[in-house]
Amino acid sequence: MNQALSCEQTITNGDVYDLDRAYVFHSWSVQSALKPLVIAGGEGCRLWDYDGKEYLDFSSQLVNTNIGHQHPKVVAAIVEQATQLATIAPATANLARGEAAKRIVNLAPEGFNKVFFTNAGADANENAIRMARLVTGRDKILSGYRSYHGNTGAAIVATGDARRVPNEYARGHVHFFNPYLYRSEFSATTEAEESERALAHLRRIIECEGPSSIAALLMESIPGTAGVLVQPAGYMQGVRALCDEFGILLILDEVMAGFGRTGRWFAFEHFGIKPDLITFAKGVNSGYVPAGGVILSDKVADFFQDRYFPGGLTYSGHPLAMAAIVATLDAMTEEQVVENADMIGKEVLGPGLAALTAKYPLVGEVRGMGVFWAMELVSDAAKRTPLAADVMGKIKAALIAEGLLPFVVDNRIHVVPPCTVTVDEAKAGLAIIDKVLAQFA
Amino acid sequence: MNQALSCEQTITNGDVYDLDRAYVFHSWSVQSALKPLVIAGGEGCRLWDYDGKEYLDFSSQLVNTNIGHQHPKVVAAIVEQATQLATIAPATANLARGEAAKRIVNLAPEGFNKVFFTNAGADANENAIRMARLVTGRDKILSGYRSYHGNTGAAIVATGDARRVPNEYARGHVHFFNPYLYRSEFSATTEAEESERALAHLRRIIECEGPSSIAALLMESIPGTAGVLVQPAGYMQGVRALCDEFGILLILDEVMAGFGRTGRWFAFEHFGIKPDLITFAKGVNSGYVPAGGVILSDKVADFFQDRYFPGGLTYSGHPLAMAAIVATLDAMTEEQVVENADMIGKEVLGPGLAALTAKYPLVGEVRGMGVFWAMELVSDAAKRTPLAADVMGKIKAALIAEGLLPFVVDNRIHVVPPCTVTVDEAKAGLAIIDKVLAQFA
Ligand SMILES: Cc1ncc(COP(=O)(O)O)c(C=O)c1O
Ligand SMILES: Cc1ncc(COP(=O)(O)O)c(C=O)c1O
Repeated sequence: MNQALSCEQTITNGDVYDLDRAYVFHSWSVQSALKPLVIAGGEGCRLWDYDGKEYLDFSSQLVNTNIGHQHPKVVAAIVEQATQLATIAPATANLARGEAAKRIVNLAPEGFNKVFFTNAGADANENAIRMARLVTGRDKILSGYRSYHGNTGAAIVATGDARRVPNEYARGHVHFFNPYLYRSEFSATTEAEESERALAHLRRIIECEGPSSIAALLMESIPGTAGVLVQPAGYMQGVRALCDEFGILLILDEVMAGFGRTGRWFAFEHFGIKPDLITFAKGVNSGYVPAGGVILSDKVADFFQDRYFPGGLTYSGHPLAMAAIVATLDAMTEEQVVENADMIGKEVLGPGLAALTAKYPLVGEVRGMGVFWAMELVSDAAKRTPLAADVMGKIKAALIAEGLLPFVVDNRIHVVPPCTVTVDEAKAGLAIIDKVLAQFA
Repeated sequence: MNQALSCEQTITNGDVYDLDRAYVFHSWSVQSALKPLVIAGGEGCRLWDYDGKEYLDFSSQLVNTNIGHQHPKVVAAIVEQATQLATIAPATANLARGEAAKRIVNLAPEGFNKVFFTNAGADANENAIRMARLVTGRDKILSGYRSYHGNTGAAIVATGDARRVPNEYARGHVHFFNPYLYRSEFSATTEAEESERALAHLRRIIECEGPSSIAALLMESIPGTAGVLVQPAGYMQGVRALCDEFGILLILDEVMAGFGRTGRWFAFEHFGIKPDLITFAKGVNSGYVPAGGVILSDKVADFFQDRYFPGGLTYSGHPLAMAAIVATLDAMTEEQVVENADMIGKEVLGPGLAALTAKYPLVGEVRGMGVFWAMELVSDAAKRTPLAADVMGKIKAALIAEGLLPFVVDNRIHVVPPCTVTVDEAKAGLAIIDKVLAQFA
């Protein structure tokens, strides 16, 4: 590392900011409008800049640092693996890769015994889609309008949100409306109605698209970026039943919802169903090293036992990423991190956010579980009018000024701290949100 | 890390092999036919297994470890960054990211000042394609039949080789024939003819597809996996001229050819041309941490200055990957690694492979430069009949048995050691190839 990088004491926020603005092109942005926050280091749920200003991380970055920042066991595992063998081709057999796959299989439901590793969430979905098409011999992929599945060719067209629109260069994608009672597409007023009508809608889409043309239904177990849309009772079971009825594979995208976020290892455990393919990334190693993948049910794995699988990538099962997975999953198990997320949701964030909803008409609805929550801010509670973008911008700036890093999407504050967040930290974060909402009430 | 992983002395090749076969699903394979080689560690151009058997790495894995295995400065930089801050969201400003982007910009031609980071080669190409479509307002992408560009939605359909065929779910891709004098598509018998006819063919493709519908021409500067197809004199300049004539952006894929492999930082430097977008991965940090990206010409960067860029990913500019880039590029510069690759090509591999071609009728042709070479093996030298797959399999097994890890594609042995390979190692590798070819002559 060069001198500038190693003499940390001489670095200022301004240096890092200027370097960024000179050379770095950013995701999902108008480049001239960017004012990136400088971060120097972190630990647990805290981050700090070069001036020593601290932030409480209520974003888990892009909802990925489930184990918090700089977990010593994960850092040690990366250091050890880097020292031993940083990289090796996917065609070899590698110890860390085997150990990582074994741990993931052990956490997955019965009947899931193989893992295909990718670099991230997008290519996990790409490969799950590829598998589903080959196994079924069909080509259409159904997915929700309220979803995000990644930025590559098929993943971005499977995505339902507006980011899909300038990127529609993949064929075979059809979208349906997810349940979302607060803004029902189905004129529903109860959970039961929303679930029933959303399923009827999905059945009609399947019938009209032609069941024999549909390879897979791809869904986030709980749509995350779209608003932590916890599906109404019965819906996911209904989706599973429709897939079974029509021979459609069910791919559940657990990239954001998986590995502890909802207080379970996998979010679909809440619904008592099993998919045919599971995609993951983020929480599996908290993003300490880029990694993602697909967990294959035996049905899918068996299909490829004697048939060529036409997919792959240079860094599939990258040793550093794999060592980070092994250490992350072991530490999460030993330290009961998933149980902590569950408890925090039930005892602190759930009640705390409900209290804010009761207190401020600005808060239209709060949804979630574990450490996976969204608050909808509205300018008119009766009409549920989303709070205007400029006000949301001010709220975001106020939260950051108060030392809280939020994850803001559209008119929502997503409350998504690491799964390791303590009761005190969760309460401290809620207090900041309370304080800021009071200014805008 | 768990006990099994840390007590290295107790681990056997068999343990690692069994773990792999039980849980890991592999790229580009029939799963039941796999017999993955076990690798325990490495240094420079050497790798070894748990029994102490050593291999000379003439593959650079997937042609990515340009700096060799376990370079101490790159390992140290990863360790340092892991200890400081392993991960942070792309929306922040991060020191390692700024430093990495600055170094890449400094190596790129004039007029390239911004870097967008991705996880690997496939998503680098996805994002370059996205940019080209948005900048031009056109949608078609031209690419060569002899090419590989990655496994995601658009990248795999831009790919020309047979792996594209089961994956054709992206629209807007058109393929043309690359120059390849040894197996000319144009009935050419000289380099000049091949270049001229390939350009005439490309012009006809552009005319027939409609220039105003073509966003970009995507090419590997030297198609790599397709056979290290060094383009004939004049061809790349002709391609650049055609792109200029028709307002088509030129994307050069430097994922395999870049960062030292050809004895230059970028392979296109050999042709005296500049593209509009450069994609990279592999050699930029030798794959020690997954990373790739796009280097934007000012023309492209300026377009997005005040317009939204609809692409992004969780691990864009991942600190660990960035720290590895900084250390890799600094070490390559200080240790004159690119110059070494150039010298090895000119003084050892070039002459040595020419000698093998003269010695064995089995060797139909040898092509390349730097540490980027392909030997075509043929069963009939006059007819240039590719050597049969089963014989190639035996040759590969014999090379491995003799302690050389080759990169074998179709009927070719790609001779692609790290750019750090010494004269003695290069000669030792050639001697093994010589010995094995003698057995099959
Ligand atoms: C549900 C879901 N799927 C896929 C992705 C894409 O993951 P990545 O950005 O790692 O490609 C994301 C990223 O936010 C996600 O939330
Ligand atoms: C020229 C080229 N482009 C793109 C890729 C894809 O890179 P990745 O496997 O990192 O996605 C490769 C991989 O071999 C390549 O050789």
